[in-house]
Amino acid sequence: MDRLDQLFAFAKEIDKEKLIGRQTYLADGQRKENDAEHAWHLALMTILFSEYANEKIDVLKTVTMVLIHDIVEIDAGDTYAYDEEAKKTQKEREEKAAARIFGLLPEDQGSRLMGLWQEFEERKTPEARFARTIDNIQPIMLNHASDGKAWEEHKVCLDQILKRNERTAEGSQSLWDYAKEHFIRPSLEKGRIRRVPSE
Amino acid sequence: MDRLDQLFAFAKEIDKEKLIGRQTYLADGQRKENDAEHAWHLALMTILFSEYANEKIDVLKTVTMVLIHDIVEIDAGDTYAYDEEAKKTQKEREEKAAARIFGLLPEDQGSRLMGLWQEFEERKTPEARFARTIDNIQPIMLNHASDGKAWEEHKVCLDQILKRNERTAEGSQSLWDYAKEHFIRPSLEKGRIRRVPSE
Repeated sequence: MDRLDQLFAFAKEIDKEKLIGRQTYLADGQRKENDAEHAWHLALMTILFSEYANEKIDVLKTVTMVLIHDIVEIDAGDTYAYDEEAKKTQKEREEKAAARIFGLLPEDQGSRLMGLWQEFEERKTPEARFARTIDNIQPIMLNHASDGKAWEEHKVCLDQILKRNERTAEGSQSLWDYAKEHFIRPSLEKGRIRRVPSE
Repeated sequence: MDRLDQLFAFAKEIDKEKLIGRQTYLADGQRKENDAEHAWHLALMTILFSEYANEKIDVLKTVTMVLIHDIVEIDAGDTYAYDEEAKKTQKEREEKAAARIFGLLPEDQGSRLMGLWQEFEERKTPEARFARTIDNIQPIMLNHASDGKAWEEHKVCLDQILKRNERTAEGSQSLWDYAKEHFIRPSLEKGRIRRVPSE
């Protein structure tokens, strides 16, 4: 196969990401978003909010990371943030998926994307930390905008959100502070986020 | 309003792009794609295919362009490539939309995105030319993948496609050659693209 055949095979394969549903509702609450829409939203937020990163970041590298971070879900499916059972097998399912899907690309490009996906997962670089922060804050923004629809549906309580976000400030202290103050606190006060776990 | 309030107001507003439908079907033909999904697909294709640009391009700038190029459709709606009536008012509708939506941002960021949007429209820089090429080739790839579903639905003929794409090679001769050979020609041979205009 020639190089362009491989690139187009990958470009066509990833179209399936548009069919992978997430648990977050769109801002207007009318339906849930999918992985491709989510990744687009993160990419643009990464560009616009990059000045708020705790550390200097390479923006193109970070954007590439958020654009590809959910591609593994084409095979592995979306694992909901608060689904403790599914999270046990998540790593293995996603690594297998990464090998297959990034393996469609020419070797140099495949290794590059595989490396960026692993970097995102490991969260050890400024780019990965910022990408993870944006990935965590975008659904909080949307959950607040939809008046807490997904939080209510899953009976999410404050401790779960804080645990899920215990490292969110590592990418950007100011964005995490903003999210707590403008999205989480008002949703807690309105009862959309529970103060104590439900039975 | 403080800077982060403006940035988050914009981030929330653009969520509406996920509700703007396009005429192109997903590769598997089960539904049409929307603007946010399309922009995600273009952004990743821009990164992966950038080595095929006719001229050297700034990849981050080009990616930013494709991520925002359809935001105006939140107000102006999607204008189908072959709808000659709607195309008459398209420019005016889209300029008004750009002023409102990019106007939500802090002034420096708003001017920057407005400039990139105009640059994309004017197609006078290497980045704009390549972005337009990817924007034209992605739906051709999907139309071919879905066995010509949108082409058949709209009774599209070869001359319309060639006219629509008369400048596509300006961004990348090799991608346009590939698309003609691997997507357009087989679809013409299978009768999915008409040879002559329908009555």
